[in-house]
Amino acid sequence: MHIHAMTNKECVDALARLGFGRLGCARDNQPYVVPMYFTYHEGHLYTFSTAGQKIEWMRANPRVCVEADEITNPDQWLSVVVFGDYEELPDTPEYEFERNLAYKILRQRVMWWEPASVASPHHSAADSLAPVFYRIHIDQVTGHHATPDRS
Amino acid sequence: MHIHAMTNKECVDALARLGFGRLGCARDNQPYVVPMYFTYHEGHLYTFSTAGQKIEWMRANPRVCVEADEITNPDQWLSVVVFGDYEELPDTPEYEFERNLAYKILRQRVMWWEPASVASPHHSAADSLAPVFYRIHIDQVTGHHATPDRS
Repeated sequence: MHIHAMTNKECVDALARLGFGRLGCARDNQPYVVPMYFTYHEGHLYTFSTAGQKIEWMRANPRVCVEADEITNPDQWLSVVVFGDYEELPDTPEYEFERNLAYKILRQRVMWWEPASVASPHHSAADSLAPVFYRIHIDQVTGHHATPDRS
Repeated sequence: MHIHAMTNKECVDALARLGFGRLGCARDNQPYVVPMYFTYHEGHLYTFSTAGQKIEWMRANPRVCVEADEITNPDQWLSVVVFGDYEELPDTPEYEFERNLAYKILRQRVMWWEPASVASPHHSAADSLAPVFYRIHIDQVTGHHATPDRS
């Protein structure tokens, strides 16, 4: 097995292709990890979630990590690690483009994760199940790729 | 789809069965997430790693999170989240039992992740590729399980 560091382009291609990983956030140095679907677009990972613990934590501390991996077999796998910042996409006119990007692209993937109420990108603030749209701004991405020895 | 909170026993059974997840650690409130094989034994997750960034971070801040999941299909999945503390298992007589537990149980699973030098549980301190044996003491475990509607 040969392990090599992935180029930036290889990392981005893997993120765009996989569209799924685990999101780590932290509060008072306690990390918290959850599965996350996302869509890569121009240096950001777009997604949304119902309000809850991870949204509260990321509002308090926007530093996050996203890890996405693919294990084909024991000597053929890759793992990509993103360091970045949480950026909420509020329901205001200036974020219309980004919210619709997140909403439209993610719709087919995440509907089954979310309650049926998440059927529209517009909800009242009083609706506790209203989705929170956000993106991760990628500050740094690294990856490793293992391939079989050709001996 | 129906989502229910898993009991403590269901969470532990899932951890024991899956033996794989993602480990989150944090330094200065920057989370870091990596894949991790582990073996559950009496309230702890046992594993090892070569020295590196995550070991440095966990030595500085032992609070960690481990997330393990299984996605069978869109309406049948589970996700278990552990909060706990990193506990290193040093190469001293009083940790012989725990180190051998980690070493023997994990050997078949993680050999392919690790350099060939990780062929013995005993290395000199000067060997930078010497494995670091550690366990996660589970403080809290929660899980959610989604099952299809029977309509």
